[in-house]
Amino acid sequence: MPPPATLSASSSFTLLSPPPKLSSFLPNPHSFHSSTRYTPFTRLRHSPSFTPRCAVIEKETPETEKPETFLRESSSPTSVRARFEKMIREAQDTVCEAIAAADGVGTFKEDVWSRPGGGGGISRVLQDGAVWEKAGVNVSVVYGVMPPEAYRAAKGAAADQKPGPVPFFAAGISSVMHPKNPFAPTLHFNYRYFETDAPQDAPGAPRQWWFGGGTDLTPAYIFDEDVKHFHSVQKSACDKFDPSFYPRFKKWCDDYFYIKHRDERRGLGGIFFDDLNDYDQEMLLSFATECANSVVPAYVPIIEKRKDTPFTDDHKAWQQLRRGRYVEFNLVYDRGTTFGLKTGGRIESILVSLPLTARWEYDHKPEEGSEEWKLLDACIHPKEWV
Amino acid sequence: MPPPATLSASSSFTLLSPPPKLSSFLPNPHSFHSSTRYTPFTRLRHSPSFTPRCAVIEKETPETEKPETFLRESSSPTSVRARFEKMIREAQDTVCEAIAAADGVGTFKEDVWSRPGGGGGISRVLQDGAVWEKAGVNVSVVYGVMPPEAYRAAKGAAADQKPGPVPFFAAGISSVMHPKNPFAPTLHFNYRYFETDAPQDAPGAPRQWWFGGGTDLTPAYIFDEDVKHFHSVQKSACDKFDPSFYPRFKKWCDDYFYIKHRDERRGLGGIFFDDLNDYDQEMLLSFATECANSVVPAYVPIIEKRKDTPFTDDHKAWQQLRRGRYVEFNLVYDRGTTFGLKTGGRIESILVSLPLTARWEYDHKPEEGSEEWKLLDACIHPKEWV
Repeated sequence: MPPPATLSASSSFTLLSPPPKLSSFLPNPHSFHSSTRYTPFTRLRHSPSFTPRCAVIEKETPETEKPETFLRESSSPTSVRARFEKMIREAQDTVCEAIAAADGVGTFKEDVWSRPGGGGGISRVLQDGAVWEKAGVNVSVVYGVMPPEAYRAAKGAAADQKPGPVPFFAAGISSVMHPKNPFAPTLHFNYRYFETDAPQDAPGAPRQWWFGGGTDLTPAYIFDEDVKHFHSVQKSACDKFDPSFYPRFKKWCDDYFYIKHRDERRGLGGIFFDDLNDYDQEMLLSFATECANSVVPAYVPIIEKRKDTPFTDDHKAWQQLRRGRYVEFNLVYDRGTTFGLKTGGRIESILVSLPLTARWEYDHKPEEGSEEWKLLDACIHPKEWV
Repeated sequence: MPPPATLSASSSFTLLSPPPKLSSFLPNPHSFHSSTRYTPFTRLRHSPSFTPRCAVIEKETPETEKPETFLRESSSPTSVRARFEKMIREAQDTVCEAIAAADGVGTFKEDVWSRPGGGGGISRVLQDGAVWEKAGVNVSVVYGVMPPEAYRAAKGAAADQKPGPVPFFAAGISSVMHPKNPFAPTLHFNYRYFETDAPQDAPGAPRQWWFGGGTDLTPAYIFDEDVKHFHSVQKSACDKFDPSFYPRFKKWCDDYFYIKHRDERRGLGGIFFDDLNDYDQEMLLSFATECANSVVPAYVPIIEKRKDTPFTDDHKAWQQLRRGRYVEFNLVYDRGTTFGLKTGGRIESILVSLPLTARWEYDHKPEEGSEEWKLLDACIHPKEWV
């Protein structure tokens, strides 16, 4: 079952989570293959009667230069989508500068791409540095089409109005950084903004927007002061906006990064939220900005403290086993990853989240009371850190 | 969202593929959590009006002794299920003996478990041997319940007969063996037999049976003579039964082990078939037996030839990248793995298929014409080897 040439592993929806409820409409791995009615996005726009079975995005083209914006020309520079793109591109610069400075040796390799109908992205990856084995910081802007069933609000349409495919816009920054030293934690963060587009193309589907994202920490060994520092920074960012945010998003994070088949979490959490639209839009834009700006102060001080800690082969093997769990979570459960893989996203950008190396030992059980056991216990029973 | 205690990571459907069409009824990762109507299997049997949203199997109990059979007492020793269980347990013995002998250093660790309502399994794992970094050979016997929608034949029921949950029986042998030497290939095989049970419990669902399975080879480097030898043995086994089997099952294998998001196959194929019931049942039992018996002659001679070949760090790194692809296929696409993870299978038995170590480099592209490129090319463009 060879894939159609238009959907080989070279188009992209980089590390973004799918829009609300869209995940339940993801195609099975063969849906693109079995459909003889697959039409590239550019044709789709002229065929409103065609209903895609899953979100569809165009194939990307590599670029040599970064454009001022990946937005279509029709976007106003004062629109939320324009200001969100500006924010994530600035955050990409700031985070990459801080990480490269802390690493001291590695540099970020940059790949830029665009899509003919608008949108594109910038992937930056530092590999085999002095401190990090792999650190990826990506931004992307996506214009796509999703099936009307995937879109909650479309269901409110009048009975005589059959909703058509819903054009959507999504932009996000996403990053995973895996250090070499087993005492230095992995960090992940992702902030994204989503809008449905052009109601005239989608009868019954009004324009709508959502914010999502989060920042979470995945150590192989627990240093209480590190985890407390990390969670304190998250809490401070949240508390500036709403006292309910931190407790609610902290629990959401513990729930989201849950590896069901292991009955354990990927790491020690942080904050996570999705489908947020029940607050003022400007307030949520500021909140996402504050969160993105909190990444460096939450993470880099921990790295500075742990990057040169001496370690043994056993410490490294345990880190590698936990990296295996990271792979399991990302490939089996993570909405952004599974959505990206199934919609034909830019594979190298999506899978840059995977560690350079990982390990799976049969039936490995850390000795009760050991440092490894303490980490595992905290992944099984999430704690309050602040 | 903690899982219910009855479905923690400790029950099992070991490395078996789901029954036909069942895959489309797999629960989403949270379906067990969100359902307040979840009932353990033992209660289900007394609640025919309860319709599970996905296949349900009981939690397993570790055993210190291997029972004569994992079948329920009501099974006749001349039944196909009894003879299939005998065959896979003998195959497990034969394969493990041959692998341990070829390894010379490593030995298989054995774990036995059973389930209160019948069924159980034996996992055998050799880890960190002289030749293999990890070799697992598992057999399991499962009694479970699946939703009626998952069962094709149930749809033929009379309109006034609402089909109930369908009890099923499945037995299988499954194995993955990852050698240390990058010139020695990974082997996977899996043979399974599936029956729906007790029509009186499931109105409109007649008793039905299927065979499935296959054997496939995943090298990091191509030696033409090795791949030809491997495919020749598969073809010989097939040709004893039906001249259409090898070409058909060879193609099925290339199609099945397809990593869609990479547009490449996991390896160099072999044979694969599923849902087979349109031949004489005795003939298919003999065919599955022949296939299982062909594993050692197809694989061990290749290992003997390659296990001591000198290699460099670069060869090892390439093998590790291909192991990463193996992980991607198994966690994202493999029906047996994804089914096992989602139904609460015995996790350590299911994930023993993952390599001891794997690697992901950002945007790695082998140099055109190199030995690494040749392997990748053969994974992208499947070849005829015999």
